[in-house]
Amino acid sequence: MDPKTASNLSFILNKPHDVTFSSKPVPTLKSSHDVLVAVNYTGICGSDVHYWEHGAIGHFVVKEPMVLGHESAGTVVEVGPAVKTLKKGDRIALEPGYPCRRCEPCLSGHYNLCPDMQFAATPPYDGTLTGFWVSPADFCYKLPDNMSLQEGALIEPLAVAVHIVRQAAVSPGQTVVVMGAGPVGLLCAAVARAFGASKVVSVDIVESKLAFAKSFYSTHTYMSQRIPAEQNAANILAEAGIDNGADVVIDASGAEPSIQTSLHVVRMGGTYVQGGMGKSDITFPIMAMCLKEVTAKGSFRYGSGDYKLAVDLVASGRIAVKKLISGIVSFDKAEEAFKKVKQGEVIKLLIAGPNEKIA
Amino acid sequence: MDPKTASNLSFILNKPHDVTFSSKPVPTLKSSHDVLVAVNYTGICGSDVHYWEHGAIGHFVVKEPMVLGHESAGTVVEVGPAVKTLKKGDRIALEPGYPCRRCEPCLSGHYNLCPDMQFAATPPYDGTLTGFWVSPADFCYKLPDNMSLQEGALIEPLAVAVHIVRQAAVSPGQTVVVMGAGPVGLLCAAVARAFGASKVVSVDIVESKLAFAKSFYSTHTYMSQRIPAEQNAANILAEAGIDNGADVVIDASGAEPSIQTSLHVVRMGGTYVQGGMGKSDITFPIMAMCLKEVTAKGSFRYGSGDYKLAVDLVASGRIAVKKLISGIVSFDKAEEAFKKVKQGEVIKLLIAGPNEKIA
Amino acid sequence: MDPKTASNLSFILNKPHDVTFSSKPVPTLKSSHDVLVAVNYTGICGSDVHYWEHGAIGHFVVKEPMVLGHESAGTVVEVGPAVKTLKKGDRIALEPGYPCRRCEPCLSGHYNLCPDMQFAATPPYDGTLTGFWVSPADFCYKLPDNMSLQEGALIEPLAVAVHIVRQAAVSPGQTVVVMGAGPVGLLCAAVARAFGASKVVSVDIVESKLAFAKSFYSTHTYMSQRIPAEQNAANILAEAGIDNGADVVIDASGAEPSIQTSLHVVRMGGTYVQGGMGKSDITFPIMAMCLKEVTAKGSFRYGSGDYKLAVDLVASGRIAVKKLISGIVSFDKAEEAFKKVKQGEVIKLLIAGPNEKIA
Amino acid sequence: MDPKTASNLSFILNKPHDVTFSSKPVPTLKSSHDVLVAVNYTGICGSDVHYWEHGAIGHFVVKEPMVLGHESAGTVVEVGPAVKTLKKGDRIALEPGYPCRRCEPCLSGHYNLCPDMQFAATPPYDGTLTGFWVSPADFCYKLPDNMSLQEGALIEPLAVAVHIVRQAAVSPGQTVVVMGAGPVGLLCAAVARAFGASKVVSVDIVESKLAFAKSFYSTHTYMSQRIPAEQNAANILAEAGIDNGADVVIDASGAEPSIQTSLHVVRMGGTYVQGGMGKSDITFPIMAMCLKEVTAKGSFRYGSGDYKLAVDLVASGRIAVKKLISGIVSFDKAEEAFKKVKQGEVIKLLIAGPNEKIA
Repeated sequence: MDPKTASNLSFILNKPHDVTFSSKPVPTLKSSHDVLVAVNYTGICGSDVHYWEHGAIGHFVVKEPMVLGHESAGTVVEVGPAVKTLKKGDRIALEPGYPCRRCEPCLSGHYNLCPDMQFAATPPYDGTLTGFWVSPADFCYKLPDNMSLQEGALIEPLAVAVHIVRQAAVSPGQTVVVMGAGPVGLLCAAVARAFGASKVVSVDIVESKLAFAKSFYSTHTYMSQRIPAEQNAANILAEAGIDNGADVVIDASGAEPSIQTSLHVVRMGGTYVQGGMGKSDITFPIMAMCLKEVTAKGSFRYGSGDYKLAVDLVASGRIAVKKLISGIVSFDKAEEAFKKVKQGEVIKLLIAGPNEKIA
Repeated sequence: MDPKTASNLSFILNKPHDVTFSSKPVPTLKSSHDVLVAVNYTGICGSDVHYWEHGAIGHFVVKEPMVLGHESAGTVVEVGPAVKTLKKGDRIALEPGYPCRRCEPCLSGHYNLCPDMQFAATPPYDGTLTGFWVSPADFCYKLPDNMSLQEGALIEPLAVAVHIVRQAAVSPGQTVVVMGAGPVGLLCAAVARAFGASKVVSVDIVESKLAFAKSFYSTHTYMSQRIPAEQNAANILAEAGIDNGADVVIDASGAEPSIQTSLHVVRMGGTYVQGGMGKSDITFPIMAMCLKEVTAKGSFRYGSGDYKLAVDLVASGRIAVKKLISGIVSFDKAEEAFKKVKQGEVIKLLIAGPNEKIA
Repeated sequence: MDPKTASNLSFILNKPHDVTFSSKPVPTLKSSHDVLVAVNYTGICGSDVHYWEHGAIGHFVVKEPMVLGHESAGTVVEVGPAVKTLKKGDRIALEPGYPCRRCEPCLSGHYNLCPDMQFAATPPYDGTLTGFWVSPADFCYKLPDNMSLQEGALIEPLAVAVHIVRQAAVSPGQTVVVMGAGPVGLLCAAVARAFGASKVVSVDIVESKLAFAKSFYSTHTYMSQRIPAEQNAANILAEAGIDNGADVVIDASGAEPSIQTSLHVVRMGGTYVQGGMGKSDITFPIMAMCLKEVTAKGSFRYGSGDYKLAVDLVASGRIAVKKLISGIVSFDKAEEAFKKVKQGEVIKLLIAGPNEKIA
Repeated sequence: MDPKTASNLSFILNKPHDVTFSSKPVPTLKSSHDVLVAVNYTGICGSDVHYWEHGAIGHFVVKEPMVLGHESAGTVVEVGPAVKTLKKGDRIALEPGYPCRRCEPCLSGHYNLCPDMQFAATPPYDGTLTGFWVSPADFCYKLPDNMSLQEGALIEPLAVAVHIVRQAAVSPGQTVVVMGAGPVGLLCAAVARAFGASKVVSVDIVESKLAFAKSFYSTHTYMSQRIPAEQNAANILAEAGIDNGADVVIDASGAEPSIQTSLHVVRMGGTYVQGGMGKSDITFPIMAMCLKEVTAKGSFRYGSGDYKLAVDLVASGRIAVKKLISGIVSFDKAEEAFKKVKQGEVIKLLIAGPNEKIA
């Protein structure tokens, strides 16, 4: 694809529910370490939909028109003179956030906590629902021949799940409960299995999601009830035949009752990771955390090694991400796709790049 | 002291605010690994006072009369035939909880999480406000010559603080905020300094406690205000000249506003440990924990190596625990001592054993 | 099986190459936490053969006649009054070393380093090639219904491999080189795969062992050459398509050239674990370890959680240990079995217990 | 100081024992994140002396004339437009190695293992014995007012020691043996004490070095004998009253007998770190490492957080680095200074920058 002639159409959010398609100039390399990527496919994330609906997430507020999208795979069309690891034509998964490389978090291996992070589709930074994208070469991950570009677009949410499961330090033989069976929850269950968990219980309030979880990687499922958190916790353990609490619990829902259940379902000395976003402040069983010596951790985006492992898990056949793809729509149907995701009709929709022909 | 002729008077809680002194038979060794200890001094802990007032802590309910007390030092008067590490006359700090040694937590080095723990003055187990006490030899820690038995009685709360600071993994050069300046909070500040923290800020709502903290081991203090948690957090950081949040925050208060402040005062990627007990459920800034990737941990009692290190910190002169001793009362004044502790007039009162003469 | 009437025949080493079969009294429970186990199958380990040939391993010298064997599975025939986790008739894998439960290593979760360990078939302690055996209940691991007692006898060497791989902290996506393709090396490769390693290279000097490794769990194999260690290391990496060195290398051979190769094959910042026993002192590339910041670890027997995970790996179908069983011989053929193992004709031979009928 | 008029004289190694002083053009900022530093003081390191004598260290060979020196403190004379943390006139300790910031080691927090590291006075990169030096701002550490520039020049070897002690994970109450009482060994002992070690034993073969160690931070010393390593190890433990082996041993000597002693002096489950450089291959007690489950680690230069902590340890008065300064010589006496260091007459000599006036 020739960036001189191809479309650089972008899908732009002006304000809540007000989007436009507009062609921007093809960007140029900012550093000798950069590459130019033609975007092939982009998945829609809950955060994209949230911006589209509300124009903000927490203190991130869309003040200027902003290109949406950050779950992308693409093809390298130009490489800077210092780039040794990629060449024109390479198919890649795109890590869409660029840290400063100079602060304490960056130098100590926690670049996801960089205060100067420039993250796609997080104001004021544009996203990847566009024709061409510039990235430092080390944030592009070459896809092996046996992986499609569509699978490549799913590496982003898979990297989120890899980071969560690593924060949880899941190890072989452990029992894991995952609250929430949306895309990230499903992928957390899959990654936990790949890390050797012997039992993985998915918990949700939608029967069809649990049915899918069972067909994906969860060994057990539980339909959460409107009962006290302690009781849901006891039921989950009974359902999966786990004595004394789960080794690890991951909340991928952000829902207050799920978080409460998490603290009751985890064992003495176990680990709970908060992976899903929700209300800022909730009623929390703090003494359960204290007296059981639970290790609780937050998980934010992804960092060192997460994308690499995500690609490896798909390439080696351990995680069949393509099962999550509900469909692929052409670029001009982007807004309709957002609506479908909002309505919960799909697991993961991909939007083809503006230069991509789809069947 | 001869257990055949000496007093084994015990201080017994019958029900809330109803205590009696009664002489019990001197206990006998249960195993060849046990020793018999004459109790010299016992500190009063907030939990003892709570049982005395309320007859229960959480689901631990005093149903039968129970001897109070668990912060003790004593003198070995008899050793079982398999004991090699202690001899008659040795002065020891007494670790007052005995795990089963056979469950998963015990075998994996986390005996404080043993579900079959027999802990002094925790129903249904009697405590150490008595004349003689039987303990496995490995739960008795010999005091070096330069340590007094009164200092020995403070090893228990110091071990609580050592465990908390280890859970927090405080390392040299770090900045630490400690919420609460009661005995455990003061000792957490002291241990954090001994672990190399460069700044330790004590936070409380009582001016006199902060003044003591400053004269003990805290480098800075902050008087908590009735303002939003975010603002108290900002004030604490400003007071101590800490940019970007504290590396570690320890809540030794159990108070809801303190815990909320804790999550706002800690830096991206920092650590928060809940060491103090309070309400079961509180309003908690869960998204601060998630988005900053905070590691939150509970801390419960003490475990492998904590008592040993506590003795070493006192013996080497790094922590002057004796400054915490507000006074020593004779055994028959035990109830008056409990009243003084409840009224908050003292930091730490010791009760002499029933066979101990005090000046 | 009734211990009052059944055989307690034992296979006893008097001195090198001098063994006898002799019936001993059936042992009795030493503690209320003990169980009596009828031994069904026992695998032969290299260390058993070494004692049989040389009468000693290092400073462990057989001075009195000693029963051999320590890789056993059996059936519970009697339980002590305090035992809650097992009942008569339960089929179990037997962890054959009993720590003191009271020393610093025991209390801190490293009971394999207990200086007072009583380990089967390590002088002066008798082994398990006998009819009946007494064990604390917590060192017996119940086999699920889908596991045979013959598989159960392989849990011991599998636990050795689990411990090695845990020392190496193998994590998903890593590249692992295993030096040596004997039983422990083969099992290390299997466990590394179960821990998520993406490439596992087995290295040996015997072609048939490498062929078996390839059919078992290794993704690649390499036939070690009589060339400098650096060159063997480079060849291994080339063979497996690994850039920049392996994440982890495990030496399960104890051979000097293998250990030298290990330090050259591991990447900057990688991990090397010494799992195999050999010469006390060797020529070692110390500057490679220093300048690459390699983490090197020893691994000794197994500890907390290793047996439990080993059973889980077999029960869940992740490691097909039964492929390692070359044959089963009756108890009276024990000495012939030792000879076969010494001659290297087999991978793993099991000796049936004296009360076991074999086809 | 005005770089337009001041001297940029440099001390250049042409080939072994052949040095010249020559003025080079003042370097210019390479990036908007850089600063220009006037070099005030530079310590002489053993590696500088080794290059001066031999023209090479291992596979690093001086092929072109190279400026020597890398232990420097200086004053900021110009800041790039993107620099926010430093201003003209700031006094700084200079971290002299610049990683690529883009490889796996860099992104994962291990930049000291970067394969593209540009390290001062390591061929082909020039060193800091010059007038002016360009550095990225984040590799310059501002000295607080209470620290001198001469102390600042000692931050480099102190950071080496900090890195070693962190690799060893020394924690409060531990016993530590340090082999070698040269500058790095002395600083390792000091840092170990600052990390809370209760006993630190320095071992050397030169009486005067041990006397200095005792006056610096070591609690005990031992004069190594020409006896087997096991015996030296036993003597060290007896001298310091350590039962069962040291928790940590650090070799800061690189000498074969010291390394052998290290493996015998460390306890079961203890940690040994190789910090000193010496012969590539030595006779090594590998089975001691294996059977005691020792964790052995290399340590190479310094990384994330090491310089910052080193500055904090000096600024807070915990490590009196200035005691190590044997003298300060003017820039034109650089070669004489190298000769004195080689002859072992001094602990640490500083060379004043070419624009520095000394008394």
